[in-house]
Amino acid sequence: MKLTQRVKRILANYESDNPGTKANLARILMHGKLGGSGRLLILPVDQGFEHGPARSFAANPDAYDPQYHFQLAVDAGLNAFASPLGMIEAGADTFAGAIPTILKVNSSNSHATTKDQAITGSVGDALRLGCSAIGFTIYPGSDEAFEMMEEIREMAEEAKSVGLAVVIWSYPRGGNLSKEGETAIDVTAYAAHMAALLGAHIIKVKPPTEHIEQDDARKVYEKQKVDISSLSARISHVMQSSFNHRRIVVFSGGGSKGTEDVLNEIRALRDGGANGSIIGRNTFQRPRQEALEMLDTIIKIYQNKA
Amino acid sequence: MKLTQRVKRILANYESDNPGTKANLARILMHGKLGGSGRLLILPVDQGFEHGPARSFAANPDAYDPQYHFQLAVDAGLNAFASPLGMIEAGADTFAGAIPTILKVNSSNSHATTKDQAITGSVGDALRLGCSAIGFTIYPGSDEAFEMMEEIREMAEEAKSVGLAVVIWSYPRGGNLSKEGETAIDVTAYAAHMAALLGAHIIKVKPPTEHIEQDDARKVYEKQKVDISSLSARISHVMQSSFNHRRIVVFSGGGSKGTEDVLNEIRALRDGGANGSIIGRNTFQRPRQEALEMLDTIIKIYQNKA
Amino acid sequence: MKLTQRVKRILANYESDNPGTKANLARILMHGKLGGSGRLLILPVDQGFEHGPARSFAANPDAYDPQYHFQLAVDAGLNAFASPLGMIEAGADTFAGAIPTILKVNSSNSHATTKDQAITGSVGDALRLGCSAIGFTIYPGSDEAFEMMEEIREMAEEAKSVGLAVVIWSYPRGGNLSKEGETAIDVTAYAAHMAALLGAHIIKVKPPTEHIEQDDARKVYEKQKVDISSLSARISHVMQSSFNHRRIVVFSGGGSKGTEDVLNEIRALRDGGANGSIIGRNTFQRPRQEALEMLDTIIKIYQNKA
Amino acid sequence: MKLTQRVKRILANYESDNPGTKANLARILMHGKLGGSGRLLILPVDQGFEHGPARSFAANPDAYDPQYHFQLAVDAGLNAFASPLGMIEAGADTFAGAIPTILKVNSSNSHATTKDQAITGSVGDALRLGCSAIGFTIYPGSDEAFEMMEEIREMAEEAKSVGLAVVIWSYPRGGNLSKEGETAIDVTAYAAHMAALLGAHIIKVKPPTEHIEQDDARKVYEKQKVDISSLSARISHVMQSSFNHRRIVVFSGGGSKGTEDVLNEIRALRDGGANGSIIGRNTFQRPRQEALEMLDTIIKIYQNKA
Amino acid sequence: MKLTQRVKRILANYESDNPGTKANLARILMHGKLGGSGRLLILPVDQGFEHGPARSFAANPDAYDPQYHFQLAVDAGLNAFASPLGMIEAGADTFAGAIPTILKVNSSNSHATTKDQAITGSVGDALRLGCSAIGFTIYPGSDEAFEMMEEIREMAEEAKSVGLAVVIWSYPRGGNLSKEGETAIDVTAYAAHMAALLGAHIIKVKPPTEHIEQDDARKVYEKQKVDISSLSARISHVMQSSFNHRRIVVFSGGGSKGTEDVLNEIRALRDGGANGSIIGRNTFQRPRQEALEMLDTIIKIYQNKA
Repeated sequence: MKLTQRVKRILANYESDNPGTKANLARILMHGKLGGSGRLLILPVDQGFEHGPARSFAANPDAYDPQYHFQLAVDAGLNAFASPLGMIEAGADTFAGAIPTILKVNSSNSHATTKDQAITGSVGDALRLGCSAIGFTIYPGSDEAFEMMEEIREMAEEAKSVGLAVVIWSYPRGGNLSKEGETAIDVTAYAAHMAALLGAHIIKVKPPTEHIEQDDARKVYEKQKVDISSLSARISHVMQSSFNHRRIVVFSGGGSKGTEDVLNEIRALRDGGANGSIIGRNTFQRPRQEALEMLDTIIKIYQNKA
Repeated sequence: MKLTQRVKRILANYESDNPGTKANLARILMHGKLGGSGRLLILPVDQGFEHGPARSFAANPDAYDPQYHFQLAVDAGLNAFASPLGMIEAGADTFAGAIPTILKVNSSNSHATTKDQAITGSVGDALRLGCSAIGFTIYPGSDEAFEMMEEIREMAEEAKSVGLAVVIWSYPRGGNLSKEGETAIDVTAYAAHMAALLGAHIIKVKPPTEHIEQDDARKVYEKQKVDISSLSARISHVMQSSFNHRRIVVFSGGGSKGTEDVLNEIRALRDGGANGSIIGRNTFQRPRQEALEMLDTIIKIYQNKA
Repeated sequence: MKLTQRVKRILANYESDNPGTKANLARILMHGKLGGSGRLLILPVDQGFEHGPARSFAANPDAYDPQYHFQLAVDAGLNAFASPLGMIEAGADTFAGAIPTILKVNSSNSHATTKDQAITGSVGDALRLGCSAIGFTIYPGSDEAFEMMEEIREMAEEAKSVGLAVVIWSYPRGGNLSKEGETAIDVTAYAAHMAALLGAHIIKVKPPTEHIEQDDARKVYEKQKVDISSLSARISHVMQSSFNHRRIVVFSGGGSKGTEDVLNEIRALRDGGANGSIIGRNTFQRPRQEALEMLDTIIKIYQNKA
Repeated sequence: MKLTQRVKRILANYESDNPGTKANLARILMHGKLGGSGRLLILPVDQGFEHGPARSFAANPDAYDPQYHFQLAVDAGLNAFASPLGMIEAGADTFAGAIPTILKVNSSNSHATTKDQAITGSVGDALRLGCSAIGFTIYPGSDEAFEMMEEIREMAEEAKSVGLAVVIWSYPRGGNLSKEGETAIDVTAYAAHMAALLGAHIIKVKPPTEHIEQDDARKVYEKQKVDISSLSARISHVMQSSFNHRRIVVFSGGGSKGTEDVLNEIRALRDGGANGSIIGRNTFQRPRQEALEMLDTIIKIYQNKA
Repeated sequence: MKLTQRVKRILANYESDNPGTKANLARILMHGKLGGSGRLLILPVDQGFEHGPARSFAANPDAYDPQYHFQLAVDAGLNAFASPLGMIEAGADTFAGAIPTILKVNSSNSHATTKDQAITGSVGDALRLGCSAIGFTIYPGSDEAFEMMEEIREMAEEAKSVGLAVVIWSYPRGGNLSKEGETAIDVTAYAAHMAALLGAHIIKVKPPTEHIEQDDARKVYEKQKVDISSLSARISHVMQSSFNHRRIVVFSGGGSKGTEDVLNEIRALRDGGANGSIIGRNTFQRPRQEALEMLDTIIKIYQNKA
């Protein structure tokens, strides 16, 4: 695998990491149809944990099978597949070497009585399953936020020491945050910045809205005339907030919606300089052929061909 | 011990496990009258912890003796015997090699003031007692659910590393769940799916009712026309939710009831594709001869002979 | 030391234990005037921690000295002496080899604001002090019961691994239990059963009353006509609930009372099949000579000579 | 250093300790003007942590310097100097070998919102700083009392294993205790007894008043006619409650007061059989020369020369 | 690097530290334009974590890039650069050896629901990133203060054992403290003293006001006529409270303000004997050239040249 100049420049931003971690980042960045472009597309399948199996898979029952998702990610030419322990265990051997995997090491569910997640995987699990990275969700703003940060801090240190990459899902919620504030531009940029400060190699946040949640922040956005008028401008601000583009940031696809809505959002992400997308429900809840076609179009958008 | 093709196919689903764990799963699947069939029948005796000795054993006083249960499981030709630490310790040597055992490593009791269980056994205990697996109860929905998931995650990682299998009792309760919701079809399928994602080899849930607990789930069940009209259809949905039949799922027998009710339920479990049953009170609270006869009939049902 | 047949049969019930633990159980069972009989009499001195020094020792000031109790246990020909860390440290060398000791590793006090105990000793302490066993109190029913069970589970596993025996004081209290319920027959039998399931070698409970605390239990006691009409019948039920006599159960003496009351209670314990007694305040709060005489009579009762 | 018979007899009471711990106890007992007498005088300087620097040192600004206290203890011929981590670190090298030191390993402060202390030093710190003992405060009666006991239990086991001595400050407070009850005779004797049971080599309590706090205790004090009418009688009762004089007990000096009051209290302590005093504010808040003179008089009192 | 006499005298105050820690203190004290003078100027950039990226960097967008701050600290000739994990990781290799770094190992944020911080870095991280020290914030007065003290205690012991220096940010807040009390002179001197007792090598507090918060303290300040009438007098009192100048104390710059206000405050700090300043927002929120000029003036002030 010969690295492209673009990927070499990205890896150079991770200057404190050991060759093992850089190699795993390279594996993700060089894999699939977007391999080498500096853009990436990841398939996450943790909705079964978050919302239950029927809400996740009944629309496309083949998706009850873990290996369906491995195969979909391989066939679509994605960069990586991310999922909790059991699902990775159910396909890790069959698909060994076929696609980089990210072990999602904490998980919540729709019965939860707190804004928290349970640790459901470990760095040791990621190693024995041949994963390239661990993935972890933090909820900045929740009463459990400090504890979650301490959990990923400890796991990230261990992961880096054994050559794994670290992906942080940074999803503000709880505490004093309003529902609208969870995706506000100030809150999202802040969420990405905190993930960067926590040492994430790859940051996942939601596409931000124009809403500003915190009064102290609003004064600054207005005074400094930070452009947040379009989605691509907001994406650009998030990238800037992620160590001025030194960290890889991917954006989630959100709830299921029409294909055109998905594609238009991707175009704005691309124009704002996002590294890519991480799209779950909008792929596996569609029939396989339709999903493959949509993913191919998304890839073309990131290749500036659509 | 020559494995049957059916058992080999089941073991192939556990593709990430080491030979030690597969051997222990094979021991359970190949033992007893159902050995090799892919079906299994397990005797669990933790009711003494859950409800106290008199409520558990006074109806059949011979059952106060731990070795009574080992002997019953052996004589009935069951696949395995599951119990907390003290009871396994009281018979592990006498019955060494006579029947696979599952060490139940957490336990509650009828004095409990929270929806939680105490850790009462360890992986080290399971090894020194010659057990094939550890068993652990989670209460999805309770305030302590995340903590329980973290406990079994850690114990499961250790168990797998030393070649033991992992059985998860997934019993939703507490939090926002209604009493009826604890056995609702959406909640039960979700409970089985979470156990699978947590890395369980064998999942134990209760036979689900037609009730749907969560509004967001109901919309999907109705829209996607998921068949939940009969017990066998619901069992089939639970199996599908357990990685599309890639994980072994057994169903509990519930409170004591009439023999014919027990047997009819078993027939529905069989028809729905369940891997088997785990029956406690309905066996050891009957006189031994009557229990042996009922277990023999259950085995015949799973063999499609009754 | 040549073991009696009676002691050999008792030790055979601990079939999962290593020779080190069996040797320590044998030391306790073979020591003193009851040595070899399968009965045992233990002196516990933790009242200073529980109630303070004056309430414990002012009636017999010689008892302020830790070595007074070692000497009393030796001179009375008891099986073992049990006490918290500091008191064992104060006599362990002088009385090394003179009498088996049990290190009480958790303790409460009369200032306590929760139904809990502090860990005040360790397995390592027991080893360096030459003890034969550790002793631990659980309060089934209290809000802290699960935590206490987890503490003894961990300490018991360690103790067994280094050849020590494990004694559990099982004293229900707190939570939904009424004061009267703490010594109810259903609650006491349940407490003994839980201690057995937790892996105790020796179980200590209080002599139960005829009261039944839990409604679900009452139905069973009535339906199954469990005999709880006399203290000896109730003791017999507790022994049955302790793995059908497979575990050693000793009964506490309770608050100080008249000699004849003490002796009559002992007779009922003996007739019910109890393994013995653990008597503190009723011995050391009496003048030494009177205590020695009473203990001698108790021993004779257990020898069926009084 | 040739031990006196008196010190040998005291050390013999610590019969379970290893030679390292006995040597450190001997260092403390043999040092200074009271060396060898079985009496001891300790300078504690943790008031800066407890009350802040100005309240502690503004009256005598030289005392802002940590080395002032080391020098005062050396020049006054005291047995030992006790202080938290930072202050010991600031003089340990300059005064290495000049005076035994006790590392106070937990500390509170006047901002505290709970009746607890933070762990602020470790056994490892004590070793690297050349200390002879660790010191730890427990608050029997507080909601955190069990946790504090568990902390010192663990640290004491470690300290003893590496040859350090253990000093416990036993200061009842919080929970159901009245302010007056904190120094009640029943509560103080109980506090000393609990420290002894926790394995302390040296116990520090406050001089008790005639007040009795607990009703159950009052009955015993009255029935058994325990003499608590004078301070020396109460001290004698505390010594008795400390394993009948088998443990070293020192008494604190309390808030700053007139010299004559201090000296009279010392006389009562001596007459009651106390091992000595631990006096902070009453020394370092006085001018150095005045403090030295007062300390010399105290020493003479303990030598029965004043 | 030949140490100056001034630096040698400062290092001599850290008499219990190993040569590794002293070497790292020396690196900080000898680096930059103030190197060797005993004064120091540190650039801290944790405002992104505390207040979010836009509030921190929008005024000077170059500052979104972590390496901007490394370069600023190098070009301004400062003694050290302090920041959380991710920002240090993003420049540690490029600037290896160019400037001493301090890894800030705990962090809060403006969403926090408690007066606490999350641990976000470790001693191991500091070592692999080539840092000279770890930095830690405590909030004396908060409900979490004891826990924070225990965290830094443990990390400080580890840091010292591997030759790192320890910087404590001591910021009273929460609990019973009024907003005004957070910077009161009594509270600030107390905060510095507690940091010293916790074993800090370098203490960071805020410049104190004339307000006195605690009544017991006010009596002493008035009785002993402690001079708190000017900022420099108050600084002198804080230095005295820090082991009588034996510990290095630096003062924060606080919120952004006019250049002259900043410089006047620095003059008072200098006159009071402060070791230096730690200035963040007032530097990086200015254009680079303006910041460099202001820092140069500050340095001249500490050199008594301005």
